[in-house]
Amino acid sequence: MVISEKQDEICEPNQDQMIQKLVFPEGILLESGKKIVPLEIAYQTYGQLSEAQDNAILICHALTGDQYVADVHPVTKKPGWWSKMVGPGLPIDTNKYFVICTNVLGSCMGTTGPRSIREDIPQPRCWGSDFPAITIKDMVNTQKILVDFFKIKRLFAVIGGSMGGMQALQWAVSYPEQVYSVIPIATSSFHSAQNIAFNEVGRQAIFSDPDWRDGEYWRYGVTPYRGLAVARMMAHITYLSEDALNRKFGRKLQESIKASSLPIFGEMFQVESYLHYQGSNFVRRFDANSYVTITRAMDWFDLSQTHDGDLVNAFAHVQSRFCVISLSSDWLFPTSRSRVIVQALNRVGARVSFVEITTDKGHDAFLLEEPDLDLTIQGFLAGIEEQRRLENHAS
Amino acid sequence: MVISEKQDEICEPNQDQMIQKLVFPEGILLESGKKIVPLEIAYQTYGQLSEAQDNAILICHALTGDQYVADVHPVTKKPGWWSKMVGPGLPIDTNKYFVICTNVLGSCMGTTGPRSIREDIPQPRCWGSDFPAITIKDMVNTQKILVDFFKIKRLFAVIGGSMGGMQALQWAVSYPEQVYSVIPIATSSFHSAQNIAFNEVGRQAIFSDPDWRDGEYWRYGVTPYRGLAVARMMAHITYLSEDALNRKFGRKLQESIKASSLPIFGEMFQVESYLHYQGSNFVRRFDANSYVTITRAMDWFDLSQTHDGDLVNAFAHVQSRFCVISLSSDWLFPTSRSRVIVQALNRVGARVSFVEITTDKGHDAFLLEEPDLDLTIQGFLAGIEEQRRLENHAS
Repeated sequence: MVISEKQDEICEPNQDQMIQKLVFPEGILLESGKKIVPLEIAYQTYGQLSEAQDNAILICHALTGDQYVADVHPVTKKPGWWSKMVGPGLPIDTNKYFVICTNVLGSCMGTTGPRSIREDIPQPRCWGSDFPAITIKDMVNTQKILVDFFKIKRLFAVIGGSMGGMQALQWAVSYPEQVYSVIPIATSSFHSAQNIAFNEVGRQAIFSDPDWRDGEYWRYGVTPYRGLAVARMMAHITYLSEDALNRKFGRKLQESIKASSLPIFGEMFQVESYLHYQGSNFVRRFDANSYVTITRAMDWFDLSQTHDGDLVNAFAHVQSRFCVISLSSDWLFPTSRSRVIVQALNRVGARVSFVEITTDKGHDAFLLEEPDLDLTIQGFLAGIEEQRRLENHAS
Repeated sequence: MVISEKQDEICEPNQDQMIQKLVFPEGILLESGKKIVPLEIAYQTYGQLSEAQDNAILICHALTGDQYVADVHPVTKKPGWWSKMVGPGLPIDTNKYFVICTNVLGSCMGTTGPRSIREDIPQPRCWGSDFPAITIKDMVNTQKILVDFFKIKRLFAVIGGSMGGMQALQWAVSYPEQVYSVIPIATSSFHSAQNIAFNEVGRQAIFSDPDWRDGEYWRYGVTPYRGLAVARMMAHITYLSEDALNRKFGRKLQESIKASSLPIFGEMFQVESYLHYQGSNFVRRFDANSYVTITRAMDWFDLSQTHDGDLVNAFAHVQSRFCVISLSSDWLFPTSRSRVIVQALNRVGARVSFVEITTDKGHDAFLLEEPDLDLTIQGFLAGIEEQRRLENHAS
């Protein structure tokens, strides 16, 4: 099934570092009916898989995340995006658990995506904007190929925040027997009109950059970095709460600026330079076609859609234990959306707990220092481990 | 003082319709110390000024508004932006009141702004991005020139929503004796970090459009319409509540789209085509340099700033009666900001009432059908009219 662990071959030269990946020559059949052949899955693992193969935790990343959960990112050289949560002795303890994280299908850190070389045509070239539309379910199906490859019959837990939470929910629905527990954080069972609207403005910012060139920018050695930076800056505002922005920046001016000089152009307020920094950092590591592809996958996400529009039907066959977590100041995926999930799970008699973390840090709080979140995840995992031990004992 | 009522001369040909304006050759001295000479003020009036000149209401428009409060807009051919509120027999009753609305300084519907011809240099040309930074106070000082020209000693009321509310508050602070009452709606005494952040992303969208050409686009016969449309689309999301978007659009698809076809490009969801419509309509009537100039004026707005950072000090000398109005689902200028205003006004013993209108329509609700808002404004105006009659009687 696997032909090689090979070095990355992607269109942009800055990405040519060694990325751990597996190649599945049979590819993947997408929800749309299209096929991607071959399929490459880039992933990182932490800890050791137990002999019983019962200690695996799959972590699903968000829109712009990647597989570098707990080790240094090869492009940015920054610590992994959840290195506060995952590691030896941390809430998701790699001394106990075998943690897997894959770069999602359609992304740009090694798993097949728009920046990958398309090999199913006579003259191999970048997928670019010919990359087919994918869904959250396609991302999950990709992860399942890797999980099956590792011969893991049942994941001890699937955990993810934001779009990662969508994948976690999809796992519970698509593969009920393969998921012992699920922790969906700051997420939703569907993308709302406002969510879609923000994504669409981000895409329009990319499309309006002349270097977008109908998605064929890689042919010309350019990248629509201005549009992508605008998309990122806007999205970044939605990841933070108003209170967090006020606390962090308020109306503080850049040191070089005097209010009396009243400039129009350039950075005046500290919040502006922070946004510019977010935008310019992002474009160094992310691909515009991936951004378009993945935001569309989020927009299409509605767990109830293939179940007569009823979330209760979608959850009818779940077997997992759930710990649904929301963040009180998250206005992108507010607590009310988690409540919808919990209510539907209750309706099907699922084992579900629900915690709203009180924080003023907004949607991004799940990535930040948030002791209550740590305690919640750690406690839930310890609880279900105990429960499983009792179950195994009884059987 | 006034030389002529003349036809408009602006850089863009589509704006050459007759706009009612006055020219003040002595110009205006800005807060920045710079001068704009001459100053043109475009305005509309409704109703008749009483002999005692005591029935004038100044209405201040928002960021992208204009002087066409209650008559057909000459470019869009649509009804005035507050034609539900202002007119004969309406809450702001033009059978009783003389209503004035000026296009704000820096805008693009006739009052001097970046699109105006600069006449203070040897070879007259567009101001473009050389237009100086302006403030909300500069906008108010411009309005005062017109109010003084009309020989109105005291405005019966100054009313405005959003940026219009900032102007209304500034009037009460700058010219306490000239304002009998103030109705600030859905506004704030300062622009927050989140407000600034959204504005900055809008500006960056404009700057990243190659047709921006450092603000000199008018020289080349182009306009950065793509960037301006992105800015408008993003801003438009902030004007609506999540509930309003869900109610109006939810996840409804365009009629031509089938969910199973999973397209990536083009309009899929109805909320997207709505946003595109908002964006493309806007660029037909608005100037990019004006957008930059006015958003900056909003960003600089902080009533407390020139009063030791204390809003109470800013309000120390107000004489007006206030009716502060907020909208329950407004997340751009939430009710908490109105409360800050009311608390500071209470602290100086001002006559202030406060109404939060319950609505799910978000910030834009003040422009929409909102019977409680009508009743609040009508009732307050009737009340202070009665009060003034008693005062006049007593004196």
